[in-house]
Amino acid sequence: MPHIVLNSAEPGIRGLLRYRPETADPLSELAEVLLRGPGTLTRGERELIAAYVSALNDCRYCASSHAACAAAQLPGGMAVVEQVRADPGAAPVSAKLKALLVIASAVRHSGRAVTAEHVVAARAAGATDAEIHDTVLIAAALCMFNRYVDGLATVAPDDPAAYAAGAQRLIMHGYLPPPADPGREE
Amino acid sequence: MPHIVLNSAEPGIRGLLRYRPETADPLSELAEVLLRGPGTLTRGERELIAAYVSALNDCRYCASSHAACAAAQLPGGMAVVEQVRADPGAAPVSAKLKALLVIASAVRHSGRAVTAEHVVAARAAGATDAEIHDTVLIAAALCMFNRYVDGLATVAPDDPAAYAAGAQRLIMHGYLPPPADPGREE
Repeated sequence: MPHIVLNSAEPGIRGLLRYRPETADPLSELAEVLLRGPGTLTRGERELIAAYVSALNDCRYCASSHAACAAAQLPGGMAVVEQVRADPGAAPVSAKLKALLVIASAVRHSGRAVTAEHVVAARAAGATDAEIHDTVLIAAALCMFNRYVDGLATVAPDDPAAYAAGAQRLIMHGYLPPPADPGREE
Repeated sequence: MPHIVLNSAEPGIRGLLRYRPETADPLSELAEVLLRGPGTLTRGERELIAAYVSALNDCRYCASSHAACAAAQLPGGMAVVEQVRADPGAAPVSAKLKALLVIASAVRHSGRAVTAEHVVAARAAGATDAEIHDTVLIAAALCMFNRYVDGLATVAPDDPAAYAAGAQRLIMHGYLPPPADPGREE
């Protein structure tokens, strides 16, 4: 049961976005830009970084949601997501993505845990400065979202189908809230 | 030296906001709503929560910046900020703020570390659901900003006067970037 009285029964961050629209706007825009906006990391790769950090933070709602989004957008599907979660170094992803996952794991621990060696290794594997920047910010942002979702004890569905359906909605409509229906105002 | 090549010499998050305007917009808007927007926690109290979490995360730039903003907006000034950092339970702040600082410290560790007992104690000290919500999100957001700033190894000024001057700018102009100067386009 959530720690505070929300104004909907929506699970995870969705209930929090509904509760506080003033913060929902920038939070949704941040997720949209980072995970779906223009960039050289694919949307699947970015969702994989988000799922990986959320799993390390033990945030069931975010880990399941982003895993479903990654699985739906990566060639290898959920098998790759699960291999990354179990052992990213051995997973069938590019050397560049492996190096970025190492950086994401360091960020999850602390910003100060990211070393020059991590960055050199990512560059050697082909990562650009923009990709390193975005990886650090995706990992940092998930450290916020995970704490927000669990710090208020929001509910997380048990059924994997709920996350798969959510992923399809996200892939279709994105993270931004739908525009208000002008018909409702009249 | 920052891990990536930035396009300015601005310190801390300012250089990162300049580097990636697409993410700067939602990040700035989030800080503005949470730390300065309408709310029943004073701006000084909110900056104090931000400074406290940043100090726990050992992020020198954010801890110094938010401490300066808190000091400039709290009746007790920097002395109170330093007492909170040293021992929040003994600092001369309200029982409500003490209880919210306990929640912020838990969030900093992990969202799952926030217990029903923490929330009951905050309510007993007079905190509303909206204040508990905002405390969790402020603490979570600082866990993002701290990791962003340190994960890319941005520079932090040594001179306390730099942070005090930054606080005055923030109090005057807020966290949103200034509107583009239309004269420049012509």
